[in-house]
Amino acid sequence: LSNERERRKEALQIQMHALGADAFLVTSPVHLFYMTGRIFDGFYYVPAQGDAVELIRRPLTPAQAGAIRLKSPAQLPDLLHGAGLPPPKHLALEDRELPYAEYTYLSGLFPGASILGGSALLYRIRMIKSPYEISLLREGAKVHDETHRRIPSLYREGMTDWAFSVEIEHQIRRMGHLGIMRCAGIRLETCSAIVLSGDSAGSPSPYDYSLPGGGRHPSAPMGPDNHVMRPGDTVNVDFCGNINGYLTDITRTYAVGYVKPEAAAAHAFSLSVMRAIEHTARPGVLCSDLYHLAWDMAESAGYADCFMGTVQQAKFIGHGIGLQVNELPVLTKSDATPLQSGMIIAIEPKLICPGVGPVGAENTYLVTEGGTERLTLCNEDIAILGHSKP
Amino acid sequence: LSNERERRKEALQIQMHALGADAFLVTSPVHLFYMTGRIFDGFYYVPAQGDAVELIRRPLTPAQAGAIRLKSPAQLPDLLHGAGLPPPKHLALEDRELPYAEYTYLSGLFPGASILGGSALLYRIRMIKSPYEISLLREGAKVHDETHRRIPSLYREGMTDWAFSVEIEHQIRRMGHLGIMRCAGIRLETCSAIVLSGDSAGSPSPYDYSLPGGGRHPSAPMGPDNHVMRPGDTVNVDFCGNINGYLTDITRTYAVGYVKPEAAAAHAFSLSVMRAIEHTARPGVLCSDLYHLAWDMAESAGYADCFMGTVQQAKFIGHGIGLQVNELPVLTKSDATPLQSGMIIAIEPKLICPGVGPVGAENTYLVTEGGTERLTLCNEDIAILGHSKP
Repeated sequence: LSNERERRKEALQIQMHALGADAFLVTSPVHLFYMTGRIFDGFYYVPAQGDAVELIRRPLTPAQAGAIRLKSPAQLPDLLHGAGLPPPKHLALEDRELPYAEYTYLSGLFPGASILGGSALLYRIRMIKSPYEISLLREGAKVHDETHRRIPSLYREGMTDWAFSVEIEHQIRRMGHLGIMRCAGIRLETCSAIVLSGDSAGSPSPYDYSLPGGGRHPSAPMGPDNHVMRPGDTVNVDFCGNINGYLTDITRTYAVGYVKPEAAAAHAFSLSVMRAIEHTARPGVLCSDLYHLAWDMAESAGYADCFMGTVQQAKFIGHGIGLQVNELPVLTKSDATPLQSGMIIAIEPKLICPGVGPVGAENTYLVTEGGTERLTLCNEDIAILGHSKP
Repeated sequence: LSNERERRKEALQIQMHALGADAFLVTSPVHLFYMTGRIFDGFYYVPAQGDAVELIRRPLTPAQAGAIRLKSPAQLPDLLHGAGLPPPKHLALEDRELPYAEYTYLSGLFPGASILGGSALLYRIRMIKSPYEISLLREGAKVHDETHRRIPSLYREGMTDWAFSVEIEHQIRRMGHLGIMRCAGIRLETCSAIVLSGDSAGSPSPYDYSLPGGGRHPSAPMGPDNHVMRPGDTVNVDFCGNINGYLTDITRTYAVGYVKPEAAAAHAFSLSVMRAIEHTARPGVLCSDLYHLAWDMAESAGYADCFMGTVQQAKFIGHGIGLQVNELPVLTKSDATPLQSGMIIAIEPKLICPGVGPVGAENTYLVTEGGTERLTLCNEDIAILGHSKP
């Protein structure tokens, strides 16, 4: 783990050099965790070369080697000086995580420095996962697979989509889900399982999310809306697993009692898109290529109006994932990033079957030298809910 | 509800006048919800006087009266011009909610305007709750009370604090908890029930929270740490209720099997602090007065070393609450805000009994003309866990 810390610090220093920054003050929880392996109230100060320094306000634990106790951020310049570090000339701060007021406050502590937005550097490093991170994702995927296998046993006849989501969350929490779904980019405020059934799966929402649902209350406009799931309805269950800080993403489709033929056909189409992406994705292929591959298939098959939503269609076919959902890369038509070995991407070709509900699947993949490896292995077929009680 | 919107808009316009802003671009989810009653991806533009305008990017719903469709934030100046609004000269933005990059991007769209930090204006308005908001808080408090009454039935012998928290969350979600705990100010990332028992209740954490616990994983350093609760241990259960967007805050103390005398004494002391605050708090009393009242009592009673924590003690005795936990006012030694009628405050005098666990209670109060009204009415005594299975 200390090798891992060292590797990440050096990767950041290389990025800093390219940006022209001679120091980076890492501040946000997700990036403190990425750089140091834990979350604290304080700072991780990375100079252009040499060792980084932790400055810790809380937790108030006994002093640790290399860590400096900090009472107020105002002490930063003095404490860094005391640690023998020269004042920064070009200081990078997290421009996409820090609120404006905090960013400008921290900038003001270093009046001799020019301030550079540095979030993108961290996103870029995090995009490629190390063998250690991949091992955590594999571990998480196994538990996540198992939760999906148990989902049919949680269904009861006459349940609402909301009630079903509550039982699913209970199951995943019992299996060690940490209860946090960190989300980059969009202002997502829920960490709940998204369970959608019937036409309400196509409800528009504030979020650029693949089938977010409209929610049951205007203060939480996402997820199930608390209607009773009817026989023949299809049901999508989409949530991120999180047992160790690293997220995996799986969607599976269920059907109440039986599968209507149009749902079976649309689901089979979704899986054919998944297979086509699996066979195409490899290092060097552009993210936008995969987006177009999926959309071209949807148009040829006559599903263009219900692919990735109906009233509101998501403008991507997948996304990077790791410490947060929606990491780089994002598989949109405008992202010309080539895939690289070590990326982790979730692929989610979903459709809405009008009058029936959502179908499709979502898997998490590791990009390898030779192509992709699927990490989420639970069965992709539509599973029947309530079959055991005819 | 449209009266409520109008009232809030006018309150903001009064605050804007004092700041010297002739427009406010409201952007964050919590403040869009506060100002408009729903959350969308877009903006709520409030001019110095007259009607405000909603500019909506998502959800893609049919056009609404007074709402303008927006594809990109870059269209803002043109769309506002098209709506007959003059260009702002002094534009307020949410400096504590918007990331630096977004704040500066939006600033750049209005090169002719000076930009003013406006978050504090919204915090100040939200501090005083309207009769409508108070009715929602009352409704939420009733459900929240009922969840605490059911907690003892969820305990099983040999449970860990983590497993107990999972069952409690399941219960509150079944009763309609929306699964979101919005939090102002600190970078809190969990929405889970905090269940703490034994000495680990005093574990230090990154958060300035009253007894946060250390958590079970470094990526989620708060809450239960998954140790088995032993006979005689006390257990604190602290979570925010949320069935309608407005949060209520309750902590109650439980004990496994029986109550040790030192825990009973410390708990009785906590309740005596609660009563003293209830009898003192009224409009005009300063927040800092209540902080000192509590701490003076703790020192006189010999509890100074274990009041509000041990290794790490919280530096407040309560906080405002509403759409977010940690609203204004915060009851610290430095907050000289006088209480006002219509404030909602959570009061949480807690202690740690070394070798036994956490004790104390937390209630949510409405400040009234005559004093305070307690909204959270469930029994404050220590409830026994596992008694039914001797």
